[in-house]
Amino acid sequence: MKELILEKIDQAVKILNEKEIDMWLTFVRETGNMKDPMMDMIVGTHATWQSAFIITKSGETHAIIGSLEFENMKSTATYKNIHPYLKSVKEKLLEVIGKINPNKIAVNYSRNSILADGLTHGMYLELMDHFKNTPYSDKLVSSEEIIATLRGRKSPKELSLMKEAIKETLKIFEQVTEFIRPGVSEKQIADFVLELVNKKGYGLAWDKEQCPAVFSGPGTAGAHAKPTERKVQPGHVINMDFGLNINGYCSDLQRTWYVLRPGENKAPFEVQKGFDVIKESIQLAAAELKPGKLGWEIDLVARDNILKHGYEEYPHGLGHQLGRFAHDGGALLGPRWERYGNLPYLPIEEGQVFTLEPRLTIEGYGIATIEEEVVVTKNGCEFLSEPQKEIYLIRS
Amino acid sequence: MKELILEKIDQAVKILNEKEIDMWLTFVRETGNMKDPMMDMIVGTHATWQSAFIITKSGETHAIIGSLEFENMKSTATYKNIHPYLKSVKEKLLEVIGKINPNKIAVNYSRNSILADGLTHGMYLELMDHFKNTPYSDKLVSSEEIIATLRGRKSPKELSLMKEAIKETLKIFEQVTEFIRPGVSEKQIADFVLELVNKKGYGLAWDKEQCPAVFSGPGTAGAHAKPTERKVQPGHVINMDFGLNINGYCSDLQRTWYVLRPGENKAPFEVQKGFDVIKESIQLAAAELKPGKLGWEIDLVARDNILKHGYEEYPHGLGHQLGRFAHDGGALLGPRWERYGNLPYLPIEEGQVFTLEPRLTIEGYGIATIEEEVVVTKNGCEFLSEPQKEIYLIRS
Repeated sequence: MKELILEKIDQAVKILNEKEIDMWLTFVRETGNMKDPMMDMIVGTHATWQSAFIITKSGETHAIIGSLEFENMKSTATYKNIHPYLKSVKEKLLEVIGKINPNKIAVNYSRNSILADGLTHGMYLELMDHFKNTPYSDKLVSSEEIIATLRGRKSPKELSLMKEAIKETLKIFEQVTEFIRPGVSEKQIADFVLELVNKKGYGLAWDKEQCPAVFSGPGTAGAHAKPTERKVQPGHVINMDFGLNINGYCSDLQRTWYVLRPGENKAPFEVQKGFDVIKESIQLAAAELKPGKLGWEIDLVARDNILKHGYEEYPHGLGHQLGRFAHDGGALLGPRWERYGNLPYLPIEEGQVFTLEPRLTIEGYGIATIEEEVVVTKNGCEFLSEPQKEIYLIRS
Repeated sequence: MKELILEKIDQAVKILNEKEIDMWLTFVRETGNMKDPMMDMIVGTHATWQSAFIITKSGETHAIIGSLEFENMKSTATYKNIHPYLKSVKEKLLEVIGKINPNKIAVNYSRNSILADGLTHGMYLELMDHFKNTPYSDKLVSSEEIIATLRGRKSPKELSLMKEAIKETLKIFEQVTEFIRPGVSEKQIADFVLELVNKKGYGLAWDKEQCPAVFSGPGTAGAHAKPTERKVQPGHVINMDFGLNINGYCSDLQRTWYVLRPGENKAPFEVQKGFDVIKESIQLAAAELKPGKLGWEIDLVARDNILKHGYEEYPHGLGHQLGRFAHDGGALLGPRWERYGNLPYLPIEEGQVFTLEPRLTIEGYGIATIEEEVVVTKNGCEFLSEPQKEIYLIRS
């Protein structure tokens, strides 16, 4: 835990140098009630009273915290300089910033990126009050670029935690294949998965009401909805979207099954074709993914392949980054649609972990969708999940 | 769950009428990553894209949400009017507010109260952008008063959930009494408790690193610190601070033990005296607690009693409210110290649940502290926890 944080703080110092920003301030309070999304990555403990966590371009780290939390911060051991205060954070904060004398102060707020927007408006007003009669309020910039870069570049330790989460997730998919049979409901499949997760003491990558998400047959919601009482039937294509959180890092994967009808021993032509187009779209996109490319270019490869085969395009992006959250980082493998803002235009970097998750509807059967995870390497990308090669067949 | 939320929304409408505020807006996004502290109480589900939850003085409820979450919001069934949007929240938001034509808009930000400060600064800037060329930005007020009142007034259903959490917490204290013996460490006691909690599938009322907090003997940190390898010894006074979260509601209780030395069959005079002074201070404070009193008046009763017996005063407030969080609500039973702001001056209301938790140091033995929970009634208060009457004795 501590090593992981020190590794990310080191990375942050490099990024501050790249972006020529002298200091990065994360300003928080009562993180037990509402936690700035960066706390777990760059602090590693909670803060009750107004607290400032400062990382500088020259590699200094300062934690300015309530005095009752001094012992706790010391034993967390992630910040070199700890400044406890009794009455108000203001004096120590101004003293530390005064010594740094920064050109710019990157602060934890952002209009575009929730992961960089941990500063509440009440706390912003407090900060402006502390900065009254100083030059600091004019030096504020959003920390969104620092955070997008820092969260994107996975360290070797982060990658190994993510691989662990993927491995365990794939094991659970295997057990699901054994469990599915005609007559069980989507909800029963989800409950089976949650029981396995609880037994192993793992966390979920997102809200348990929709993790796993399970959709059986034609005419389902297909995404962003809870498992229902709908029962698995022969002739259904089933898909499941599921991820674990193990030691603070998330997986996010999807798999597709087909339930054989009496007399069938393989999936019918149209189901097989749908599955194959998804599988191929993922491989085509992965072949193009490398540092310097833009996210929309990768999305377009998969999207075009699906359109070319006569299916409707998927109503979302091809893939997102993941890490401590299931939706993490900045750059997105998404289309150039207004709702994605500038994210599809950010250049892809080495060390980023993306999902690849195209989908298409197989009329009368259900939804085919596979979601794999890849890490961007120096010249391309590598699969972190063993890709699904064949549609999983369920016998009646 | 749904009934509990509808009950709180009804209460909110009454409070808007009392305070003569036409509408209350809770503006959020990506609550899966960082959740406004009011979401569980007045919404009951998550929101991914910019979303507005509006409650009006006339009893209307409006949820303006991303269209992919329409089904989810409908099945949550806590808001009567659901307005899904595709591209931007702005149009629907202005349309709904236009019809309400409010005198004031209470919004989820606050300098003083973290529970009312769920709006991030980035989202505040977004809101100001949506409100450009409208009169609405001039009508904004903090929702802190509404929230303090709403969180304070416990409904019968909330009270019964809190009683359940208290009952289970007291059961665990009993098991701890069986477990403590000379030679076990603070950390072993804490681990024993956490195992019981896991086995029952309960949540903790605060950060598990300090829940339970266990302090054995003289010279410990005494509060806000993790259990250590320090071992229980004859002659130690032990205290433990612990709370559960069951079905979303928290308990927070403390108990005191004494470890008999060879030849002792009761606590020595000075230990007994310290314990009795704490016990008495709680009863004296409870006797004064009733609607209309101010928090500092109640704190002073316990504080004076402790000083009168020759002990140092405790370095914190006598008690705080609890509910969905261990530190909840507004009004505080605290001294008139600057760091508590206006909270000790807010009048006490019927239905509020407070802790009573004075402490004192017994030189050479440890810290005596009991924490009970009471609910404010029409003319006084009632104990929700069966008060600790005798110091628990551990035989060597």
